[in-house]
Amino acid sequence: MRKRPALNVALIQESFKGSKDKTIRVTKEKIAKASKKGAKLVVLQELHQSEYFCQCEDTKYFDYASSFEDDIRYWSEVAKEYEVVLVTSLFEQRAIGLYHNTAVIFDSDGSIAGKYRKMHIPDDPGFYEKFYFTEGDLGFEPVDTSVGRLGVLICWDQWYPEAARVMALKGAEILIYPTAIGYLESPKDRRDELCEKENSPKERKKMLDAWIGVQRGHAIANGIPLLSVNRVGFEADKSGQIGGINFWGHSFALGSQGELLAMANEVEEVLYLTLDLDTLLEVRKIWPFLRDRRIDSYGELLLRYAK
Amino acid sequence: MRKRPALNVALIQESFKGSKDKTIRVTKEKIAKASKKGAKLVVLQELHQSEYFCQCEDTKYFDYASSFEDDIRYWSEVAKEYEVVLVTSLFEQRAIGLYHNTAVIFDSDGSIAGKYRKMHIPDDPGFYEKFYFTEGDLGFEPVDTSVGRLGVLICWDQWYPEAARVMALKGAEILIYPTAIGYLESPKDRRDELCEKENSPKERKKMLDAWIGVQRGHAIANGIPLLSVNRVGFEADKSGQIGGINFWGHSFALGSQGELLAMANEVEEVLYLTLDLDTLLEVRKIWPFLRDRRIDSYGELLLRYAK
Repeated sequence: MRKRPALNVALIQESFKGSKDKTIRVTKEKIAKASKKGAKLVVLQELHQSEYFCQCEDTKYFDYASSFEDDIRYWSEVAKEYEVVLVTSLFEQRAIGLYHNTAVIFDSDGSIAGKYRKMHIPDDPGFYEKFYFTEGDLGFEPVDTSVGRLGVLICWDQWYPEAARVMALKGAEILIYPTAIGYLESPKDRRDELCEKENSPKERKKMLDAWIGVQRGHAIANGIPLLSVNRVGFEADKSGQIGGINFWGHSFALGSQGELLAMANEVEEVLYLTLDLDTLLEVRKIWPFLRDRRIDSYGELLLRYAK
Repeated sequence: MRKRPALNVALIQESFKGSKDKTIRVTKEKIAKASKKGAKLVVLQELHQSEYFCQCEDTKYFDYASSFEDDIRYWSEVAKEYEVVLVTSLFEQRAIGLYHNTAVIFDSDGSIAGKYRKMHIPDDPGFYEKFYFTEGDLGFEPVDTSVGRLGVLICWDQWYPEAARVMALKGAEILIYPTAIGYLESPKDRRDELCEKENSPKERKKMLDAWIGVQRGHAIANGIPLLSVNRVGFEADKSGQIGGINFWGHSFALGSQGELLAMANEVEEVLYLTLDLDTLLEVRKIWPFLRDRRIDSYGELLLRYAK
């Protein structure tokens, strides 16, 4: 079989610019530049058009989702203009009162290659996503594009080996995670015990390492490269309930043995890298984990708890 | 609920001593010493009574399994004498022509707390286990002991998130992996391409990191501490087919966020550490991954391939 050429990738790690208009304009400029530098696959962070509005529960933010169809048209044009496969992360209004956290993947001709609706929805202090997003109902379906078969998942999904495995079993060639994760800050006027505990340098390092570590586990267990694109910068909680979130950046790329290929810092950054997909997937011949799965004995994975 | 006292653990990483008699005598001495130092849980490496005989396929090695019942009596006495919960890894003859790679777990009174028959069986150059071991048929069942509910798995199992997850769903409080993994050496009289490639320092590091990394992923995804005990030292392949295996040691212990608690070097070593199980499992309240599993959408995990 003839090998495909190596794939040039750009991961765009950004901060929110104060308004949707300004934010998407800057993102578009970065995509233009990435395209000029040869990128054929561009991945954006979770909910990249707006601030991370899930820090509090407020119905006004549902209005952000009403432009879903316009947003699709906008990013379709961008993908087409700059001839890149583009992974976006949008707020989808499916009906009034029914919303999803949805990745729309465009091929380089601007067509919609596929959609993925976030399947695992978190709900933690500062991350009240269960208020906004209904669990996805499209399953774990990789998306065929001109650069390969992409296993796109979103943020909280990254903690679930099941999601990564199903994508791999369906022939995904890369796992891709747009994400928005960071450190909680204590409110200025009072000390919040959970925030304080989480904000010690030791705890921060442990969280960051765990975030990278669990995704590295998916890359290794499935013999598959992995891209993770995180938001960066401080965003206040407008409700004042918490002190805001410092999104920790550190977007990264792993090879199919979990080896680190590239990592961003905790600043705005576009991470460029090259993936030789055909070679990367060869590792499965040496480490044939898919060969020996005990599918006769995994039934309990479908239970909530098995004790 | 009253908290349990912290658990003192000893992980015994050894080399083969040339004969079963000598090897098990030295192991027993190490258990005695560990007990004296306060260890209540002692974990031994995979197939710790003998050389790693799976480097070649030879029916003579089936004789090693014929002493399974005697071996159980021996280690039962050791556990009882030194009052430790003991995780052993034995070669089980279930019938002539039917053998398993079996962990027998003894409680500190010498009683058998449980058995686990290795479920995932590898077969790679130098690791011809499918010739020797039939796949386990006891499922992924944690074992209740006086020190906690132990999720004992064996070596190749460590690459499978499914195994770790089922153990966690069944209430395991620690994941424990006796293992035997190392670097293949080229035969002295010829260059073996696979061995040479795998033996570059860069490839060795990548393999070691992947071995740690995939297990770290299980600890994080399940919010559970993890102990992995590996064989160490060079063992020749008596058939001359390969140049032998350098078992790489590096036994380690992780906390429930995947943080490294202790790690051995590439020499004989007993690793001591203390686990506060009740506190470690508290992390699941902050990172509630079990809460949000999409059990309605994991059905494809039971397929061999889903494309």
